[in-house]
Amino acid sequence: MTTAIIQLYELADVNGRRYSVFSWRTRLALAHKGLAWESVPVKASDKTAIAFSGQKKVPIIRDGDRVVHDSWKIAEYLEDTYPNRPSLFGGETGRSLARFFNSYADRQLVGSLFPALMLENVGMLAADDAAHIRTGMEKPLGKTLEELAAGREQAQQAFSRALDPVRSVLRTQPYVSGAKPAYPDYILFSVFQWARITTALSIVAADDALLPWFDRLLDSFDSLGRNEPAKR
Amino acid sequence: MTTAIIQLYELADVNGRRYSVFSWRTRLALAHKGLAWESVPVKASDKTAIAFSGQKKVPIIRDGDRVVHDSWKIAEYLEDTYPNRPSLFGGETGRSLARFFNSYADRQLVGSLFPALMLENVGMLAADDAAHIRTGMEKPLGKTLEELAAGREQAQQAFSRALDPVRSVLRTQPYVSGAKPAYPDYILFSVFQWARITTALSIVAADDALLPWFDRLLDSFDSLGRNEPAKR
Repeated sequence: MTTAIIQLYELADVNGRRYSVFSWRTRLALAHKGLAWESVPVKASDKTAIAFSGQKKVPIIRDGDRVVHDSWKIAEYLEDTYPNRPSLFGGETGRSLARFFNSYADRQLVGSLFPALMLENVGMLAADDAAHIRTGMEKPLGKTLEELAAGREQAQQAFSRALDPVRSVLRTQPYVSGAKPAYPDYILFSVFQWARITTALSIVAADDALLPWFDRLLDSFDSLGRNEPAKR
Repeated sequence: MTTAIIQLYELADVNGRRYSVFSWRTRLALAHKGLAWESVPVKASDKTAIAFSGQKKVPIIRDGDRVVHDSWKIAEYLEDTYPNRPSLFGGETGRSLARFFNSYADRQLVGSLFPALMLENVGMLAADDAAHIRTGMEKPLGKTLEELAAGREQAQQAFSRALDPVRSVLRTQPYVSGAKPAYPDYILFSVFQWARITTALSIVAADDALLPWFDRLLDSFDSLGRNEPAKR
């Protein structure tokens, strides 16, 4: 048995702002489980701090001698390692459907918002981190972030449309996961939180039914989400 | 306690083919629960057979003196009324996430396939049923089914793209719901089965990872799905 506090290695800018969409999933998952944890900032352009993990992606958690990376794998690890704490998935069917929701969010939501936010996201970073991320993204895309941002309005509309099924369920239940939030809510929260931290733009209409849901989650866990300064 | 067999009122054409996307959800839900049930055909243009339900939509189930309509409400009714039979949702979180999946399927999958299939769907019906459905759809849309079908190729591409999150999870689990199928699989099955019955066109590529999944479900429950003749 380990008594060490869990360490979460995650991207942070020079002001300590946690701007990674994925690490917000892990943050709320750790809080949901009621585990003691601490955040260890990682620079995008300098991964020496996470050399111990044998790879270069964040978020990573270190729980005693266990090291897990990838936000989805971390959620599964926490659920399996701490089964007597509040469940992130509500059973095996819930876990399988959460896996679908994770994929839906990555492909349809993060994918759509990406062109709208990435230029601003890079704009808030120090020159070394900004250059590192820019190069890593522009190469595979074959486009500059500025070119990508030109499709911003259309991207944002696609994002809002892709959220229709969520709006529909929030008419009959307060959270995506039902009466109480669970991991699928944290997946969706991470996308809204990413936008809240990186852009002054509204990503949905001012009267969108998703905003009260987001507000409730910002207040959760002693305002863990709200305590992170918003861009505007 | 009732000993009456459950009756499922659902659309059928003059050859008895069950062509309603929604009634296939209920059919597999009844089979999953292992309940005794029988199908009662309903003509789209003559709803006298379901006057007892006080409304005009199908599918409807009649379980003793209980009458429930709307495929989602029927699934919830079956889960709540027969809790000791195999679960459709795998718990409350699973139910909430299944509600999301239902909405995703209706908006992104049925919605996308609609322009590609509706003209053919109507083409397989007798004149009275075809005219009834055509009028009911063309009026609110402000378009003829022929005009709608002109966007068929684009609609089918949108359909296939919207399935990406499903393809992604089927790489790590055999069913949307996990190791075994549950209601979310039947929701998705209903869309593929609707296409199988109403069109000779392929709705996905011949090597699509979804086809082996569909095949397995066609074989389930003594080939309940496969016994319904395909269009081609």
